[in-house]
Amino acid sequence: MQQVIEQVLPRIVPTPEEEAELREVEKDLIARVDEAARVHDRRLYSRLLGSASRGTWLRYEKDLDVFIFFPEEYSKQEMESIVAQIASEVLVEPQKRYAEHPYLRGRFMGYEVELVPCYALRELKGIKSAVDRTPFHNDYVRSRVGGLENEVRLLKQFLRGISCYGAEARVEGFSGYLCELLVLRFGSFEQVLRSAATWKPGVVLGMGEVDEKRERRRFSSPLVFIDPVDERRNVAAALSLQKFSEFVYASKCFLRAPSMSFFFPPPRRVSRQEVAAMLAARGTVLLGLRFPAPGVVDDILYPQLRKAHRLLRRQLEVAGFRVLGGGVHAGRRCHLFFELLEATLPEAHLHLGPPVNSSHEERFLSMHSSELSKPFILNGRWAVFVRRRHLRAEELLRQFLTGELRSKGIPVHVAEGMQQSLEVVSGEECLDEEALESIAEYLSPLFPWEREQG
Amino acid sequence: MQQVIEQVLPRIVPTPEEEAELREVEKDLIARVDEAARVHDRRLYSRLLGSASRGTWLRYEKDLDVFIFFPEEYSKQEMESIVAQIASEVLVEPQKRYAEHPYLRGRFMGYEVELVPCYALRELKGIKSAVDRTPFHNDYVRSRVGGLENEVRLLKQFLRGISCYGAEARVEGFSGYLCELLVLRFGSFEQVLRSAATWKPGVVLGMGEVDEKRERRRFSSPLVFIDPVDERRNVAAALSLQKFSEFVYASKCFLRAPSMSFFFPPPRRVSRQEVAAMLAARGTVLLGLRFPAPGVVDDILYPQLRKAHRLLRRQLEVAGFRVLGGGVHAGRRCHLFFELLEATLPEAHLHLGPPVNSSHEERFLSMHSSELSKPFILNGRWAVFVRRRHLRAEELLRQFLTGELRSKGIPVHVAEGMQQSLEVVSGEECLDEEALESIAEYLSPLFPWEREQG
Repeated sequence: MQQVIEQVLPRIVPTPEEEAELREVEKDLIARVDEAARVHDRRLYSRLLGSASRGTWLRYEKDLDVFIFFPEEYSKQEMESIVAQIASEVLVEPQKRYAEHPYLRGRFMGYEVELVPCYALRELKGIKSAVDRTPFHNDYVRSRVGGLENEVRLLKQFLRGISCYGAEARVEGFSGYLCELLVLRFGSFEQVLRSAATWKPGVVLGMGEVDEKRERRRFSSPLVFIDPVDERRNVAAALSLQKFSEFVYASKCFLRAPSMSFFFPPPRRVSRQEVAAMLAARGTVLLGLRFPAPGVVDDILYPQLRKAHRLLRRQLEVAGFRVLGGGVHAGRRCHLFFELLEATLPEAHLHLGPPVNSSHEERFLSMHSSELSKPFILNGRWAVFVRRRHLRAEELLRQFLTGELRSKGIPVHVAEGMQQSLEVVSGEECLDEEALESIAEYLSPLFPWEREQG
Repeated sequence: MQQVIEQVLPRIVPTPEEEAELREVEKDLIARVDEAARVHDRRLYSRLLGSASRGTWLRYEKDLDVFIFFPEEYSKQEMESIVAQIASEVLVEPQKRYAEHPYLRGRFMGYEVELVPCYALRELKGIKSAVDRTPFHNDYVRSRVGGLENEVRLLKQFLRGISCYGAEARVEGFSGYLCELLVLRFGSFEQVLRSAATWKPGVVLGMGEVDEKRERRRFSSPLVFIDPVDERRNVAAALSLQKFSEFVYASKCFLRAPSMSFFFPPPRRVSRQEVAAMLAARGTVLLGLRFPAPGVVDDILYPQLRKAHRLLRRQLEVAGFRVLGGGVHAGRRCHLFFELLEATLPEAHLHLGPPVNSSHEERFLSMHSSELSKPFILNGRWAVFVRRRHLRAEELLRQFLTGELRSKGIPVHVAEGMQQSLEVVSGEECLDEEALESIAEYLSPLFPWEREQG
């Protein structure tokens, strides 16, 4: 393992020159921001927070998170407008982005910079949104992480390599702050993995003693890590069961046979022909939806795509189609795909009604006579063979996706995209270049570290 | 209603001449049986029991049930052999039949006669089998039914008309004794129907007061009628929920619009072409099994056919085929049929395994790698896409029905028949002439009283 780590470190730890450069840029940036801020109010000031501030950034990351602190009397709107003005003065190509609240993103001397407004608070109790917590996180980690920075970097790179890094909606994995806390808690990268290899869903962790039973009642996620600066909060709240399990299994595999491919897996290369062959071998039916990607960030788009996917899957299943699985992908266009056991269903459908002699009997009998059968008794209940409404899955999707999509439960941005232009395709037609890897990953998932070296 | 009843009665009540003839035959028969019996043991004697004795037989029925009474020291084998000898002396073409115990059946002066051995008991407590209870039933009904015989006949004929008469396994309906008790309990044919029209599963009846809650705990059938000669017994134990419900609904319909067609429905006439057209309109897949009928009575055969049907349906469903329904029919050959939503299934099958990091993980991972995918994690559990074992329902049935059928759970007589010669057919091939009505009744059930007059 030590050999592998020796190979990984140079690729993720900045050189002294790179670190010096970053500190230089930081100084310039903070000075420029402070200057621009004080024009508005002399009480405003800025600080670099995040991994660059804590010394845990990865060598190839050039991100600087600058928080601008406001007195509490400022409204969100005022803060937003001032930060926008500062950004326009300091950053190249500033753009407004949206998380819980808007922030500004742009470039500065080759670095990606985020300018985030927050309140200057003495105590955590007064926080108004998640960003107000960040300064406290920063202070907590900075004062403790000294000497363990590279252990954090190893853990972050390991998680990135196995596709589990990042708390954003697209990934639902481990945040940088969670990585830092795990290393602080267990002492090293290796010890984090040794612990993770034993985890089962329902693990409860914290920097001190934790009351496992109590916390498990409060939080339902597979991993609970009590935030040392705010014990009401679970730092791992965004972690999905999927990514939790992948990390646990990857930890076991790495400890058993350490290798570089956990940190730097080769990309999965699949051709259209290979995916078409996978599909043919399965004998199933692939249905796909494509529509232009709406202009919202992944953190908003992915949850909406997944919700739309669940809704449509449910529609197909209610109509009698069996859905083996599927997935979503967002690129220039959005892609939803579904693998079905059958493309069509027969006409006859058994419709079950109320018990014989129940109060709903008359209504059922008067409503349900079909071309296929009259109502009849089946083990004490009324039943009738009726013609199925939807015989073709593709038609069902087409029909469902006309008219008022919002009122049918399709989330707003997905509905917008679909209403702009929607394609329903099947079989090999689904194998769009940009969705190809997602479809291959669904049809035949491969752990990143098991991918073949190209 | 009175008009309908006036029309029905002449067809089901014997004329005085017919009744006199029956009594004459009874006298002769009992004398002949007693004579033959006393050769073996002077203590043996015989009695006419059943509906002919109680005056509740239907005009066109020519059945005489003669019970031969033995002292308790006789073994079942001795009784059986003596009754067989008596039958060979008294009856034309005597045949041994099997119920709970063997009995003899044959003809006597144009009547169908059953000779049944039983013990001569003073009290019901000592009974050794169900036949020992019959003399007590007879005494109970005979002493009370006077004046209500035709009401019983109306109820029996009504039940026969709606296909609910008879406690035998093929029907699972109302026994003659249950009809007699219902009329005694409610006072007339009409009053039985007025009560039945309000029944829901779980009705508890008896000749006196009944503790509904207690009886419902003891008996699980849809109708409980406590036997007045033996309160441990439910007279309606053989009644299925299906026939119970059909009687309830028929009662409601008859009271609303009385007609002869409840008592004497026209036969359902369906041609092969009509059933083929029904099938085509449904778009489903009909699979059929045919084999020579084993030489056992319907009371044994039907439960075995139904059990085999349930077992095969389960096999199909476990393999992923959706079975809409089906049925059984026994004629010269036995017929099992199944209606499926699909004849074939695609190769890909999602096989779910144990949770990640559970004790079964290693075993699953070492056993399950397939041509379609490696094992992967799906929401915290292991999973793998595997090739389905059975892609064609017909092949699955053929494969299942080779080898040792008994050990697979196929009941003995059905297994015998299948091993003699088994056909697996599909679609219109299933439409064998003798099973045609059963298949039509399954595909498009019709209440007998709603059949069109030919």
